[in-house]
Amino acid sequence: MKRTLIVLGLLITLAGLTTDARADDGYRLWLKYDLVSNPQKLRDYRTSVRGWMISGSSRTIQAARKELRNGLNGLLGSEIPEVDGIGEGNILICGTYRDNPLLRGIDLKDKLEEAGTEGFVIMTGKVGGKDAIIVAANTDIGVLHGVFDFLRLLQTQRDIGDLDIVSFPRIKLRILDHWDNLNGTVERGYAGFSIWNWHTLPVFIKRRYIDYARANASIGINGTVLNSVNADPLILTHRYLVKVAALADVFRPYGIKVYLCANFDAPITLGKLKSASPLDTNVRKWWKDKADEIYSLIPDFGGFLVKANSEGQPGPSDYGLTQADGANLLADAVRPHGGIVMWRAFVYTYNPKDRAKQACEIFKPLDGKFASNVLLQIKNGPLDFQPREPFSPLFGAMPKTNLMMEFQITMEYLGQGTSTVFLASLFKETLESDTYAKGKGSTVAKVVDGSLDGHTLTGIAGVSNIGADRNWTGNEFGQSSWYAFGRLAWNHDLTSKQIADEWIRMTFSNDAEVVASVERIMLESRENVVNYMDPLGLNMIFGYDNHYGPGPWVDWSPHPDWNSTYYHKADSLGVGFDRTKTGSDAVSQYHPPLSAEFASLTECPLKYLLWFHHVPWNYQMKSGKTLWDDICYHYYAGVDSVREMQNIWNSLKGKIDKQEWNDEQMFLDIQEKEAVWWRNACALYFQTFSKMPIPAGLEKPDKTLEYYESLKFPNAPGTW
Amino acid sequence: MKRTLIVLGLLITLAGLTTDARADDGYRLWLKYDLVSNPQKLRDYRTSVRGWMISGSSRTIQAARKELRNGLNGLLGSEIPEVDGIGEGNILICGTYRDNPLLRGIDLKDKLEEAGTEGFVIMTGKVGGKDAIIVAANTDIGVLHGVFDFLRLLQTQRDIGDLDIVSFPRIKLRILDHWDNLNGTVERGYAGFSIWNWHTLPVFIKRRYIDYARANASIGINGTVLNSVNADPLILTHRYLVKVAALADVFRPYGIKVYLCANFDAPITLGKLKSASPLDTNVRKWWKDKADEIYSLIPDFGGFLVKANSEGQPGPSDYGLTQADGANLLADAVRPHGGIVMWRAFVYTYNPKDRAKQACEIFKPLDGKFASNVLLQIKNGPLDFQPREPFSPLFGAMPKTNLMMEFQITMEYLGQGTSTVFLASLFKETLESDTYAKGKGSTVAKVVDGSLDGHTLTGIAGVSNIGADRNWTGNEFGQSSWYAFGRLAWNHDLTSKQIADEWIRMTFSNDAEVVASVERIMLESRENVVNYMDPLGLNMIFGYDNHYGPGPWVDWSPHPDWNSTYYHKADSLGVGFDRTKTGSDAVSQYHPPLSAEFASLTECPLKYLLWFHHVPWNYQMKSGKTLWDDICYHYYAGVDSVREMQNIWNSLKGKIDKQEWNDEQMFLDIQEKEAVWWRNACALYFQTFSKMPIPAGLEKPDKTLEYYESLKFPNAPGTW
Repeated sequence: MKRTLIVLGLLITLAGLTTDARADDGYRLWLKYDLVSNPQKLRDYRTSVRGWMISGSSRTIQAARKELRNGLNGLLGSEIPEVDGIGEGNILICGTYRDNPLLRGIDLKDKLEEAGTEGFVIMTGKVGGKDAIIVAANTDIGVLHGVFDFLRLLQTQRDIGDLDIVSFPRIKLRILDHWDNLNGTVERGYAGFSIWNWHTLPVFIKRRYIDYARANASIGINGTVLNSVNADPLILTHRYLVKVAALADVFRPYGIKVYLCANFDAPITLGKLKSASPLDTNVRKWWKDKADEIYSLIPDFGGFLVKANSEGQPGPSDYGLTQADGANLLADAVRPHGGIVMWRAFVYTYNPKDRAKQACEIFKPLDGKFASNVLLQIKNGPLDFQPREPFSPLFGAMPKTNLMMEFQITMEYLGQGTSTVFLASLFKETLESDTYAKGKGSTVAKVVDGSLDGHTLTGIAGVSNIGADRNWTGNEFGQSSWYAFGRLAWNHDLTSKQIADEWIRMTFSNDAEVVASVERIMLESRENVVNYMDPLGLNMIFGYDNHYGPGPWVDWSPHPDWNSTYYHKADSLGVGFDRTKTGSDAVSQYHPPLSAEFASLTECPLKYLLWFHHVPWNYQMKSGKTLWDDICYHYYAGVDSVREMQNIWNSLKGKIDKQEWNDEQMFLDIQEKEAVWWRNACALYFQTFSKMPIPAGLEKPDKTLEYYESLKFPNAPGTW
Repeated sequence: MKRTLIVLGLLITLAGLTTDARADDGYRLWLKYDLVSNPQKLRDYRTSVRGWMISGSSRTIQAARKELRNGLNGLLGSEIPEVDGIGEGNILICGTYRDNPLLRGIDLKDKLEEAGTEGFVIMTGKVGGKDAIIVAANTDIGVLHGVFDFLRLLQTQRDIGDLDIVSFPRIKLRILDHWDNLNGTVERGYAGFSIWNWHTLPVFIKRRYIDYARANASIGINGTVLNSVNADPLILTHRYLVKVAALADVFRPYGIKVYLCANFDAPITLGKLKSASPLDTNVRKWWKDKADEIYSLIPDFGGFLVKANSEGQPGPSDYGLTQADGANLLADAVRPHGGIVMWRAFVYTYNPKDRAKQACEIFKPLDGKFASNVLLQIKNGPLDFQPREPFSPLFGAMPKTNLMMEFQITMEYLGQGTSTVFLASLFKETLESDTYAKGKGSTVAKVVDGSLDGHTLTGIAGVSNIGADRNWTGNEFGQSSWYAFGRLAWNHDLTSKQIADEWIRMTFSNDAEVVASVERIMLESRENVVNYMDPLGLNMIFGYDNHYGPGPWVDWSPHPDWNSTYYHKADSLGVGFDRTKTGSDAVSQYHPPLSAEFASLTECPLKYLLWFHHVPWNYQMKSGKTLWDDICYHYYAGVDSVREMQNIWNSLKGKIDKQEWNDEQMFLDIQEKEAVWWRNACALYFQTFSKMPIPAGLEKPDKTLEYYESLKFPNAPGTW
């Protein structure tokens, strides 16, 4: 063993010789499997895992075997043999109860029942009188999930001396939504082209497709929607379906089903029918035939995601029918095959009194009208993925409907591809919000996991931030939000801190200072963005169309609700959207006591203040400051926090891979410049209404409002 | 030493443990610096290079030092020390004569004079009575070029016992043209997004920018045009120039100058002038001021490339002025700063009798009218980067003008991103063509390198095939054409075989079987494509707009010369474009005896037959076959050759990195399918005119012509 250690030391030295060429490019994500750095832990692990075995021969088990081999050999730094018996013990035994006779000597019945079809059990125990670590499951995919979880224990340097883990997903469908266009661009994508190369499929299978599946399986994601919700009907042609089938074949061993966005007008554009009406029998037949064709190519096809009657997309309203009529049309087509339909609740008209109210107005009356294999997919907030929104009041409003969460991992409104924002905090904030639908404790999480209303078809979707950039997400910290989405979809009780801790250890280092410092950056990062972009409940004041940078002055759109001024309603009296009874009364869409709390100027949480209230500039805040001063201090605090993130990161130089460190240093530099831009532009703009000075002691903006208003970004990424 | 070898053996074993994660992703290009595989060579090299030194402190020398350290340590597998004296000898000594006193004891004067400003000397010799290897140059950039060349000797496992090399570039400007748009897409780009991330510049410096510079410096490329010839004027705004300056700063140490494509209307679009006429003093002032601004940011800015009055681009013709008037306008602006203008000869009207004649008709009368700092940049053939064209008759027609070659490395018409085609053969074919401008031996190469007409401002450009794909070029073999372009730009006397040999050894392996087999694939690859796409001088019969796949039936463009039928002129009598006196008389644009040779149906080289002649279907070829049969046999031979490429590649399994081998296997699978598609579609289409059967014994097309004509590819890459 000593000999190996010496060799490893040399290995590291030699690897260091060509540092530049071998700097970490981030491609491996959180599955790096580098040598365990803590010598004591390394010794422990080597003692506990002298060999390993895995039963079964399916492609899923083959994938798990490969993962085990690469993972153990990498983490333990020498070849850990695959064995065929318990021998002297200290063996890792993986498999299903059915396939592995060795497991039958242990009573795993209760644990396995809890683990269900996708979960797993990890425990230390005796097998044939010898010490063993067991990764057991009811299914092969459960085994694969367990293998990834066991490797994570080593990656994060946990104690594995006394394991007793049962883990299973709380939500049934855990899905990544790709807003990828068929020409390779990605709507709201900030990490390069689409990872799907439709042109070279089905023949060319990129290594990245496999690594995509590995990464997702390692965090329990079990579905992927391949194309944008603004769906090109071409994806449903045979030529493309063959390509989709090739991807489904790559993902299948990893327990990941493929879904597609369907264009509601496909019967017209592809089928040459005169109508796409759900009442038209030819239309119903077209969808049924199309579903049959898809399932003949992809027997485990997941189903459809549909954006209908939204931002120019066709839908059932075109025929005077309801959203439920539309959803049920497609649901009928896929039901015989076990497929489902995810129907988006992001539907609005362009000139509403209050766009935030529209989803409830449209969908609440339809509760109970949706087919049993439909999920209504609802964005976390009532508007559109803002840095902060209260939860959508649809959660808690439709007990008879399968309600699915839609988060956005790509940061359209949170600094896009360059900012460092760990989104677990945002996801958790929504999931932990109490709807009070059935009294206290009726959290959004319980709506989504089905426990509140007894649903079993449950789902959660995250709009992907993945692109063809080598490190997948542009800024490597974007990986942490992808990771967090998967981990929370599996178990929403995990804390942001737990998830950050895991990700940092697997990505950068297990060094205590690195973990603590990066954790601080990550856990505070989302609030920092809110502070310099949208404090106190402000929202939707972004650059027009590209949503890049501040644009509180935007007032030229023919659609009133595409203007920033529609949302902030700044005037000489104050700022904010009155959603109380004197205004749009959106507060009434929430259950008591929330409705009253939000409606009260004094009780409303400060973070939602200007979301629900139009507040005078000189209003006296609880802090003692005027509203104007408080807004200013938030903007300035946001910038200061980014500078503090820079200080912390700078202190880690030499403790993190050189390339990863360099890249983040430059990204933080960009973020600092953008934070100052947001702060200055917004303070100067709102000052034209408040007519009040920026509080003394704060640095004055060095550019004029006219300068900021003149900035144009015709080539900002993600706008296709 | 033995100890090190044991460690290295283990290193290799350990690296092999996580093969999947560490499979070669192609990013390192030909600069892999992996351990020398031949034990005898490795021993020799270690004996000859016990230490190394390099003199100087410029950023160029720092880059060379880093390259030496990484290269030697990687290739020799242990840390080779940087030393400060000759010691016991066997030291590699690098530097300029000026900076390194040790070199002054050796007579390098003649050699260095030959090496010039960018070249170098590599020789074995005695320094202070001890054995040494010397890499010497007159300039720091010469030293860097020499360092790369020395490392190449080791990478390709050459004997270094008795070195005596003097190397210098034959052409002054060796430039990559990027057809990259500011929104990140790449026109005719088949390897993903642009490598330039304009959005994150100037702050974020991608590691890839540095590796781009390294790769280009290693093959002697000394300039890069960053944006597409269909130029967005925005690139000339201050906001973008600051970004350009950041890239120039990265490239400067590597001897690479930055150039920009200029939009001729920029004085109107950016400067708000009413005209862009060269006669307008405000326009002249605008360009002068713009040049001053650029040079204040980038003191060594190279100059402009311009596509004017071509495919919708503005230009001097808009004002009734000549192309020379346009070029000289910009040339005047950059001349005070030492800048140059590359003016494209790709100018044509949409309804000519013969588009192939137009460049000569437009530009030949302007010989002598261009400013001394203008180069006229001419595509290799008279049309547009076809699989095969005769050389452009402009070469040899304008002795008083600086004529620059434009090759296309990206394979718009040669299989695009997936096919395996080594373009050295195409480049060499053009360069070795004899123009007979000053009698026999007046090759295109001599026109381009200036030796024929005594020009010193000489240039060669290659339209880049680089994108953000991890391996730069999509199909890794695309790297070989980039490599070949650079090597030929430096020294056009190198043979295709020499270049292939170098590239294979540096990229895949020094194993003799691998080298021989891959060389065979590469050297035959271009003729294979010609055979199944465009045999016997056929051309321009590609899919409309996207140029993907066969489209001989295309006849619907409002521009006659955008139709395939314009070029092949198939009818019941025969096929081919009559460019003899009975037709367009394009042959007369060539010097005798070529003009007569091309004009003669019997003397015309078969490869150009249908380029110059309309030939009856039943014409008796020298082969004894009819023309129709001969065309068919070429198509079928092309497909057979691709299958032979597959056989050869399959035989190399296990001898090439697994991922690299897998990828190429899939690409060849795509190419085989496309070759069959080309063959069947073209044979069936031309058969509608010839009314003759496909020769007995050849497999019959399994689809109908209608099927092939019905294929649509709305999302084919590269069309932006």
